[in-house]
Amino acid sequence: MENWLENKIDTEPVVISSRIRLARNIKNIPFPNKLDEEQGKDLVKKVEDAFYISPEIEDKYKTIYLWQNEHTRNNTYLEEHLISQKLINNSKQAAFILNKNETVSIMINEEDHLRLQSITGGFNLEETLEYANKIDDLLEERLEYAFDEKLGYLTACPTNLGTALRASVMVHLPALTANKEIVGLLNALTQVGMTIRGLYGEGSSGEGNIYQISNQVTLGLREEEILRNLTGVVNQVIDREKLARERIFAKNKYVVEDKIYRSLGVLKSAVILSSKEALNLLSNVRLGVELGIINDINMRILNKLLVEIQPATLQKIFESKLSEKERDLNRAKLVKEKLETVRL
Amino acid sequence: MENWLENKIDTEPVVISSRIRLARNIKNIPFPNKLDEEQGKDLVKKVEDAFYISPEIEDKYKTIYLWQNEHTRNNTYLEEHLISQKLINNSKQAAFILNKNETVSIMINEEDHLRLQSITGGFNLEETLEYANKIDDLLEERLEYAFDEKLGYLTACPTNLGTALRASVMVHLPALTANKEIVGLLNALTQVGMTIRGLYGEGSSGEGNIYQISNQVTLGLREEEILRNLTGVVNQVIDREKLARERIFAKNKYVVEDKIYRSLGVLKSAVILSSKEALNLLSNVRLGVELGIINDINMRILNKLLVEIQPATLQKIFESKLSEKERDLNRAKLVKEKLETVRL
Repeated sequence: MENWLENKIDTEPVVISSRIRLARNIKNIPFPNKLDEEQGKDLVKKVEDAFYISPEIEDKYKTIYLWQNEHTRNNTYLEEHLISQKLINNSKQAAFILNKNETVSIMINEEDHLRLQSITGGFNLEETLEYANKIDDLLEERLEYAFDEKLGYLTACPTNLGTALRASVMVHLPALTANKEIVGLLNALTQVGMTIRGLYGEGSSGEGNIYQISNQVTLGLREEEILRNLTGVVNQVIDREKLARERIFAKNKYVVEDKIYRSLGVLKSAVILSSKEALNLLSNVRLGVELGIINDINMRILNKLLVEIQPATLQKIFESKLSEKERDLNRAKLVKEKLETVRL
Repeated sequence: MENWLENKIDTEPVVISSRIRLARNIKNIPFPNKLDEEQGKDLVKKVEDAFYISPEIEDKYKTIYLWQNEHTRNNTYLEEHLISQKLINNSKQAAFILNKNETVSIMINEEDHLRLQSITGGFNLEETLEYANKIDDLLEERLEYAFDEKLGYLTACPTNLGTALRASVMVHLPALTANKEIVGLLNALTQVGMTIRGLYGEGSSGEGNIYQISNQVTLGLREEEILRNLTGVVNQVIDREKLARERIFAKNKYVVEDKIYRSLGVLKSAVILSSKEALNLLSNVRLGVELGIINDINMRILNKLLVEIQPATLQKIFESKLSEKERDLNRAKLVKEKLETVRL
């Protein structure tokens, strides 16, 4: 499975990445919010013992203990979509197991004991679920999950009962955002048991025109049904976005090209750049690549920049604590450097 | 004398060009507004006979008859600051004599019979006046000017009586415009008998932060006094502009650099570009050159672009009639091409 950041443009330009998350809890151990620091760390140990059962696994995976890191370092994992804000809130006793390719992350002591996540580039839910299930099976060999015949996997929050599966697709919807269709879409998706959120999940708005569409309902459906429903909905969203793009482009070809190239021009020239502005400009450039207007940018660079321009990752790259003003200056430098070879 | 468009940055970064205009009328011939087409053309002939008196002059100068040209072609001369709007309004019987270097233009049948103009790059009023006086002397050898001992040169409009000299300096005042000092300056200049106008004279506002400062009073002062007064005023304006630049730069170094480089970025990337926006972006880039922030643009390119982006000149360059939308597209192409080698 390929890291989503590395993913080049594939058959489906609207979709950036696909993600699967399984929530699991271990029988006879209280949910994380009832565990003290020592008990929490014991659980981390217990999961590690169950997981690292062969030299191959030990070679391919490592555990990152949040309590050993500075806050900014932990935030870089959040910005890479490898862990959740809730895991960081539990830093004192939280950890996660990560593979080298950074496509799989097993969060320990998030809201549930385990949150297995797999993420990959493009529209690829089946393969992503397969990978998550493999990890799940491996863990289940040595851990007894809390499971109920009727309620399915038992989870800290009742909205996750049943399959405890959340499948999520990250999409780039500049045209539906521009023509405001996104507002109606949000309501429509809620009515069919789906939800749409911003780049960084709950509470984050659609900055950079990037949204995550995921299933809301986990109980009473099989995993395959959840995936089938989500796939159907996402395909509809893709079609609508493409139609909206065609309409805008047919009506205002030069206006669209102007916006795309000016965005590239500003990204290549700015001395001060906020992350919000950068996300929006990168969205326009991404649209240019997706429409075939810009041909000399690798999508990999744009994906990586989505993460690299974030505050914590930026500070990791420049190896120093940076104030907001310093971040804006360094962000501009970084973006300019990454896009240096791209022609205007 | 060097053409102002060709002028490279010299010792004085704020000043773009210097211009002298002398108004003259020929004795016993009514002012142009009283001449019919035939009489007007007779006057053109009379001036030509008096002017083209040697093979050297015939080689160096030529007459352009506005009535032979399309309106757009005549407008290109206006955009180059070689003739005035009033000359164009009189197209049916107006002409002008132009030297090869395009530093001298003798307008015939403007508001007065003759308007001798010389224009050069940088802050250079003395040399410019000298050149105008030379032409004036030459014409006076064979034409009898309308002159009164008390009122000086007689002109169609009484505000030009006396020396009938207007000296004018084109300046770039982005800092005084940004901090709004320009408003007070306008009032102060009026009180000392000076006037400040936009890039294209009366009625044009200070687009692109470019202004023309000139003497308002022509009667009761000698030519040298007019020049000395104007030079004094312009030197004060230069000092205030420089001080304002220093203050802005000291306070917001990165903000200034950001604005300058973004402007260059947009000029190098836009697909649609209005002349108003282009003028303002070019002003920011000019400031960057004047402040030594941008080092690889020849000021000549920026001067020429001031004219080349104007509607008529643009159509001349692209050799076709262009609608406003087409001009905006072609203007963007032209600017991109001219700035192609400049690094961001």
